Amino acid sequence: MSPKALDYDSLNENVKKCQYAVRGELYLRASELQKEGKKIIFTNVGNPHALGQKPLTFPRQVIALCQSPFLLDDPNVELMFPADAIERAKHYLAMTSGGLGAYSDSRGLPGIRKEIAEFIERRDGYPSDPELIFLTDGASKGVMQILNVIIRGQNDGILVPVPQYPLYSATISLLGGSLVPYYLDESANWGLDMNNLRDAVQQAAFRGVTVRAMVIINPGNPTGQCLSIANLKEIVQFCIRENIVLMADEVYQQNIYQDERPFISARKVLFDMGPQMSKQLQLVSFHTVSKGYWGECGQRGGYYEMTNIPPETVDEIYKVASISLSPNVPAQIFVSHRTFSGLMVNPPKPGDISYLKFEQESKGILESLRKRARMMTDGFNSCRNVVCNFTEGAMYSFPQIRLPPKAIEAAKKAGKHPDVFYCLKLLEATGISTVPGSGFGQKEGVFHLRTTILPAEEDMLAIMSSFKKFNEEFMAQYEDHQGYSRLCT
Amino acid sequence: MSPKALDYDSLNENVKKCQYAVRGELYLRASELQKEGKKIIFTNVGNPHALGQKPLTFPRQVIALCQSPFLLDDPNVELMFPADAIERAKHYLAMTSGGLGAYSDSRGLPGIRKEIAEFIERRDGYPSDPELIFLTDGASKGVMQILNVIIRGQNDGILVPVPQYPLYSATISLLGGSLVPYYLDESANWGLDMNNLRDAVQQAAFRGVTVRAMVIINPGNPTGQCLSIANLKEIVQFCIRENIVLMADEVYQQNIYQDERPFISARKVLFDMGPQMSKQLQLVSFHTVSKGYWGECGQRGGYYEMTNIPPETVDEIYKVASISLSPNVPAQIFVSHRTFSGLMVNPPKPGDISYLKFEQESKGILESLRKRARMMTDGFNSCRNVVCNFTEGAMYSFPQIRLPPKAIEAAKKAGKHPDVFYCLKLLEATGISTVPGSGFGQKEGVFHLRTTILPAEEDMLAIMSSFKKFNEEFMAQYEDHQGYSRLCT
Ligand SMILES: Cc1ncc(COP(=O)(O)O)c(C=O)c1O
Ligand SMILES: Cc1ncc(COP(=O)(O)O)c(C=O)c1O
Repeated sequence: MSPKALDYDSLNENVKKCQYAVRGELYLRASELQKEGKKIIFTNVGNPHALGQKPLTFPRQVIALCQSPFLLDDPNVELMFPADAIERAKHYLAMTSGGLGAYSDSRGLPGIRKEIAEFIERRDGYPSDPELIFLTDGASKGVMQILNVIIRGQNDGILVPVPQYPLYSATISLLGGSLVPYYLDESANWGLDMNNLRDAVQQAAFRGVTVRAMVIINPGNPTGQCLSIANLKEIVQFCIRENIVLMADEVYQQNIYQDERPFISARKVLFDMGPQMSKQLQLVSFHTVSKGYWGECGQRGGYYEMTNIPPETVDEIYKVASISLSPNVPAQIFVSHRTFSGLMVNPPKPGDISYLKFEQESKGILESLRKRARMMTDGFNSCRNVVCNFTEGAMYSFPQIRLPPKAIEAAKKAGKHPDVFYCLKLLEATGISTVPGSGFGQKEGVFHLRTTILPAEEDMLAIMSSFKKFNEEFMAQYEDHQGYSRLCT
Repeated sequence: MSPKALDYDSLNENVKKCQYAVRGELYLRASELQKEGKKIIFTNVGNPHALGQKPLTFPRQVIALCQSPFLLDDPNVELMFPADAIERAKHYLAMTSGGLGAYSDSRGLPGIRKEIAEFIERRDGYPSDPELIFLTDGASKGVMQILNVIIRGQNDGILVPVPQYPLYSATISLLGGSLVPYYLDESANWGLDMNNLRDAVQQAAFRGVTVRAMVIINPGNPTGQCLSIANLKEIVQFCIRENIVLMADEVYQQNIYQDERPFISARKVLFDMGPQMSKQLQLVSFHTVSKGYWGECGQRGGYYEMTNIPPETVDEIYKVASISLSPNVPAQIFVSHRTFSGLMVNPPKPGDISYLKFEQESKGILESLRKRARMMTDGFNSCRNVVCNFTEGAMYSFPQIRLPPKAIEAAKKAGKHPDVFYCLKLLEATGISTVPGSGFGQKEGVFHLRTTILPAEEDMLAIMSSFKKFNEEFMAQYEDHQGYSRLCT
């Protein structure tokens, strides 16, 4: 009998080709160990609440009231909810037609799209059109929608930074397109070398692949770098010259841990070039409620904003969005929230209790992340075979691990990538669940791991010293000290 | 200069080919009219809360508490929330790692998947394996995931009922597969004729298309029919014989408005055939929180259960699900809820206040829907050129409209499908926003429209008489009374 459609042999090959390291072998092993009772520190994915970050109070109060609108009629409501949360909940409920239980328009609620446009205008200093903002169930879904519209087949190439966030490689595989890598320069703090970029496009053309879009991740995942204005300008000019769409993944725009390079959006850089230039780039930028100081990953809220995308194309994207009816409505409230209270341009009036608490909570989270970024970088750099750039932004540390030849051999014997081998041993020894660098792409013979900077501040020193102890033992086992290997003396 | 990647001309052709009528021309026009201040009755999509249905109290209390876990420590909590909602919220929070703000496993929270398996077991009388249950952001996303794994190219065919729900046609286009239609028999209450099915497969083979899966929608959208056990058995046998996957869209399983044909799952029919047969069908069934008496569309919660799908395939599907990280967590709570309190097999103990209220609310909704189904069918059938099967289940009425030749000509002149023409006029005249039958597929020269049965019970008579008045006027305008056309006398 011929295989059935859902037998492995007859599945869509593009599905099989996808790789998704963040939830790959390491994650699966970590889940197993957890089931067996081992304490696992899940630093494989940027999931702040899973590592103990508390939700901000105000938005959760608002969403609770929106979910239970009958509470608004309860005479006791003011005992449990501050007046501004009550008011805000009414504001959002009035935007819906039927509350959180009704499908919204497939692009999201008009009122929320308008608030996002206002947020973008405040941020960049240029007006934004709500009609060009689409809400999504997290930024991932938005990226997938846009790539789906762009990619027609294997001759369509997408420039993706290496190391990259695997959402991109996996989605490009799934859609049958071609990933065109460009390498970030570790020795220049993961900056972007324009020569690399040009080479990448030429080499792709040589293979018959036309580059149609370029992805930048700013601040970077897994690298943690913040792109400089100069770099951003070059990128924009390059995309205009090469006639390619720029996809700006700016989900970490509120996660910045240094003051020299604040976040600047690709859109602002474009518009700063003047009215002539600014019409020439097709740009889509992505944002989410999963990151920032919110970290509301489980809510699945995000949006993208399109710049210079023709209306007929917007209609096509709208149609595709319609197939799955509507992004989840509760998360839409969060998206708007962030843009509303998330910036300090539109603060509630003085004396407003929620505002103070919100400020305290959000600043507290960001300040603590900044400290943790520093502790982690320092911890890694204190190991003799580890070098690590400082986490300027985002939520990750991406140290390079220098592995001795014997370790590489042992990995080969075990049938594993050397970095997977290292990370598995780390996991078994310490419970620290990281992602091997090969999941993000890396240069031949160079090994990294990625970890989030999210473990609680008070646990950080212990985690780093547990890492260091493991690393020492690993090196002791595999390092060959020209005759005086530690193991044998 | 060559077109840019997001110019219309250079978009992915599969995207352009999609049609999605539910949010198509009619919906867009209705939205315009609404903006202009016209009162629109949105019966184009099964969106109960948008038409005034109130959310059930208990699950909303539970979700509000889960969103604001700090309320659980508030000394006033019992003033506003019943004790069983408090307890239930704690139960769900304990299942998460980090509350609703943390990504869950990409398949959903293990505890919820277990509760769903228990629900399925109670419903069907056969055990269900939580490992084969994946949670999704609404059933739509689940259907898309499974079709994505099955469809490899245009020679892969999917049997889809006609009339059908356009999620299927649109997704198949998007994935570049081939839709293989099989016609439901309007004169046999939209039943399924097995000969049609066999013909459809043969004709597909003739075009080089191999049928890999078959979709059934039970209860039907847009048809409202409930499949008989006999029909379901034939379908299962047919799929086994033809070696094709059965995709059972059972999202309306709790929306039944007659007693002769209660809902029976495809899975139960399969297992009732005995251990030998029951291993032979690859079956995926879909469910959602958007329908039933919940109607929590905006929350975007759903799941699918896989039967006889090999583990390597399950792993591949898991990997694809991982790309977008996790289904939204709040809706996962709703999914479980429905399975928990939604059936009367596991009732809270007597004296439990929430239980009584829940029963009252949910029964009230179902009873009212039953009445509305009857009022609508009768209303349509009271028009001389309209025939309409009774809505046995689901949420729709799908009357056939007999259009006079002059109307068809007028439509042609206007460059519209005749049914689109009719529905647009209906919209302009009455504000009733329906979907033309052509959006679901229909036989040549036969015209339908689809409306939901969701307008409030107290508005129903007025809506039906407004429809009748419009229809009379339309007929008066276009009917040719062999010489005594009403318009001319
Ligand atoms: C660079 C980057 N883009 C997008 C996402 C997707 O986030 P979400 O889908 O939760 O919005 C992530 C999540 O970690 C990310 O790191
Ligand atoms: C037959 C059918 N399947 C699936 C769906 C999708 O529902 P959701 O994605 O809201 O779960 C619908 C919605 O109307 C439907 O009618």
